[in-house]
Amino acid sequence: MTEHLVVIGGDAAGMSAASQARKRRGAEELRITAFERTGFTSYSACGIPYWVAGEVPERDSLIARTPEQHRAAGIDLRTGTEVVEIDLAGKRVRSRELATGAEEWTGYDRLVIATGAEPIRPSQPGFDAPDVHGVQNLDEGGALIDSLDPGQRHAVVVGGGYIGLEMAEAMALRGLQVTLVSRAAEPMPTLDPDMGALVREGMEKLGITVVAGAEAQEVLLDAGGRPRAVRSTAGEHPAELVVLGLGVRPRTALARAAGLALGEHGGLLTDETMRVVGTEDVWAGGDCVEVLNLVSGTHQYVALGTHANKHGLVAGTTIGGGKAAFPGIVGTAITKVFGLEISRTGLNEKEARAAGLAFKSAVIRSTAIAGYYPGVELMTVKMLAEEGTGRLLGVQIVGGAGSGKRIDTAAVALTARMTVGQMISLDLAYAPPFSPVWDPILVAARKAAQLVGQGPA
Amino acid sequence: MTEHLVVIGGDAAGMSAASQARKRRGAEELRITAFERTGFTSYSACGIPYWVAGEVPERDSLIARTPEQHRAAGIDLRTGTEVVEIDLAGKRVRSRELATGAEEWTGYDRLVIATGAEPIRPSQPGFDAPDVHGVQNLDEGGALIDSLDPGQRHAVVVGGGYIGLEMAEAMALRGLQVTLVSRAAEPMPTLDPDMGALVREGMEKLGITVVAGAEAQEVLLDAGGRPRAVRSTAGEHPAELVVLGLGVRPRTALARAAGLALGEHGGLLTDETMRVVGTEDVWAGGDCVEVLNLVSGTHQYVALGTHANKHGLVAGTTIGGGKAAFPGIVGTAITKVFGLEISRTGLNEKEARAAGLAFKSAVIRSTAIAGYYPGVELMTVKMLAEEGTGRLLGVQIVGGAGSGKRIDTAAVALTARMTVGQMISLDLAYAPPFSPVWDPILVAARKAAQLVGQGPA
Repeated sequence: MTEHLVVIGGDAAGMSAASQARKRRGAEELRITAFERTGFTSYSACGIPYWVAGEVPERDSLIARTPEQHRAAGIDLRTGTEVVEIDLAGKRVRSRELATGAEEWTGYDRLVIATGAEPIRPSQPGFDAPDVHGVQNLDEGGALIDSLDPGQRHAVVVGGGYIGLEMAEAMALRGLQVTLVSRAAEPMPTLDPDMGALVREGMEKLGITVVAGAEAQEVLLDAGGRPRAVRSTAGEHPAELVVLGLGVRPRTALARAAGLALGEHGGLLTDETMRVVGTEDVWAGGDCVEVLNLVSGTHQYVALGTHANKHGLVAGTTIGGGKAAFPGIVGTAITKVFGLEISRTGLNEKEARAAGLAFKSAVIRSTAIAGYYPGVELMTVKMLAEEGTGRLLGVQIVGGAGSGKRIDTAAVALTARMTVGQMISLDLAYAPPFSPVWDPILVAARKAAQLVGQGPA
Repeated sequence: MTEHLVVIGGDAAGMSAASQARKRRGAEELRITAFERTGFTSYSACGIPYWVAGEVPERDSLIARTPEQHRAAGIDLRTGTEVVEIDLAGKRVRSRELATGAEEWTGYDRLVIATGAEPIRPSQPGFDAPDVHGVQNLDEGGALIDSLDPGQRHAVVVGGGYIGLEMAEAMALRGLQVTLVSRAAEPMPTLDPDMGALVREGMEKLGITVVAGAEAQEVLLDAGGRPRAVRSTAGEHPAELVVLGLGVRPRTALARAAGLALGEHGGLLTDETMRVVGTEDVWAGGDCVEVLNLVSGTHQYVALGTHANKHGLVAGTTIGGGKAAFPGIVGTAITKVFGLEISRTGLNEKEARAAGLAFKSAVIRSTAIAGYYPGVELMTVKMLAEEGTGRLLGVQIVGGAGSGKRIDTAAVALTARMTVGQMISLDLAYAPPFSPVWDPILVAARKAAQLVGQGPA
């Protein structure tokens, strides 16, 4: 008998799951229906800042797979159609075609919930005015690009996290004077404040005004109802264009209404195969789920395309009859503002304290490549190690070209639960155009090992 | 009572050991004498190609620490002085001052042998002519630079390994037409031939003529006794300048004469603290020792500055009364020719077969960053996994900007003895300017896992 798989949400997690299940089970075995509210599927939301910046010229470059391609692969994809109710007991979903309002019930044998995230929008006055833009999806990105005009000279970006930094770069690339308003004491609150301060200093050198430790309170409008400034607790910041980069939260109203249990961050909870806890036939993945942090052992919410794709692969493989698992994350992330690279993995000091861990922090400054090689730039590495055991807990990097992706070395070491003492002798690639003779990660490991009594120097 | 540490060899391993021991034990506790044949200490031999290329303008940029700095740190450094005999039973070394020929015996309590490597030089006719250059030390590099003249139009580089490739780039940067003559079927014989072929193709696109699978047989001289061509088994290759990049072997004649046991590659054998096997008071490190390959479990010879520095740190820490260990290597190396990045770690197919391992090889092609991001380049990743266990055995990378240093991810995974199945869910840093949403290392792991029955796809 043919089974029916229903997927709610046509972006990375949902369509990866659908594609993987399709690959493993033919149409005679498995019928697949996917519902997507927008007209787009499988696109890179992470790429929107670079499209808005003008660095990626075409919107369609961000689309990994079009609705037509999915349909050609044998997936019954309903774009412009929103699922408005999940009936777990009846094993069916109610969908609404947005253009017509027509509703229908669709039964399922297996369900994938991949409803993604919704942007955090301030409720203060003026934030609903024209030229106050989110950049959460392709439509919003397109609206921002369409609204650009040569009369605009100042942009305020609200939010000092990844999206905020990327949008600050994007607006600067569009020729605007940019002010970044960040609530945290320093931008990039997933870093410790001492590392965040390096980000702020780097951005200021690049000509971006950083107003940290300030709350945006109002978008002040001109007579035409368009922004002229943003008022924050730190003053007024001129802005003909306002960009919101406040991050996102899991879009789980549908799941909650269906009675599915949510975690403390509002995301769905799943097991290693991405099956929703407490269900037999419901999977979830992407920006609507919480993930296990393998370092702290607690669940956390991280909206990131790379996780969404892995979730989809694992859910689709499982539904397709194969074996796969998503054991969790270690908290790796990376971004850049022009040439300033910023990355992190594991726990920062606040997170380590929250996990009840006693630790030491080492901070080292190094060149990213051999000091004598042309184009050499500096980088700072912060490394946290547990007292007693010497276990690596986390790494943060701020620096020039070639520094950011080095975080991967630490991400693997965290996964393997290495000690900083063990890390000193890691056989990392050395040649003058790529690294100093002691890779900065090793220099940090040496210092951290010394602080926890595990190392030579 | 004051102990006496004698160090033979004033480059990376020897002077790291001396410096570390000095740091831990003051002059009243430990007297340190170091002998160095040349006038230089602690320099980056790996940087010589970039100096010869003109990219590093000053020779002295390559010197990490001068003789004067070492002396100021309380090390009795004797430059221009060669050790010509080690008397293990008498715990003394005989040294000869090169300028005067004066000899003397110096007693030691502890000895560090860091005599480095000697370049392999062909014995065929013409290879001792002027304008046939090695690039093993600063004097040779300087001689090559001094010999450059605008009348030279062609250079032949003999040797297709790391030094050969780097010197090919250097000579091309000096404006010469370069022919690389490599004995192996493809350049970079530490890669499998299919990956070496990518290196050859990349170099040919860069305008370098690659003559692979050919043996250099003679340097043909003009009437003035200067090179006019190199004759190989593949023909005659015009050359007014010939550069030897044939690699090195351990310089261990002194150690052998003293009766110390050498490994099958001619290098000294040590334990994890870099103490020479079978001795109580002799340490060794750097290019004169063999190292344990943690993947194959066998000893191998790898002359690399990053290992030499670690050896010195470990030996010096141990001699200084601390605890440190060098457990071994996984075989990581990296180089580049202009924008073509080449790296490897672990075992290649030949090495895996020699170690008696059954394995599968996955080869994938990917972009190094998001495909839509400006400046994106391609990379090829080859990954070997053990059949049955799925253990990662090795990785090779050939590609454009941003691809080479990714090898570090695999180096850590090898050290942690991860399976390729485990690697699929590694939390590697993702943002469009740094990586596609599936990092190429993860794409390779997925394919390798599939080949050994461990993965979803």
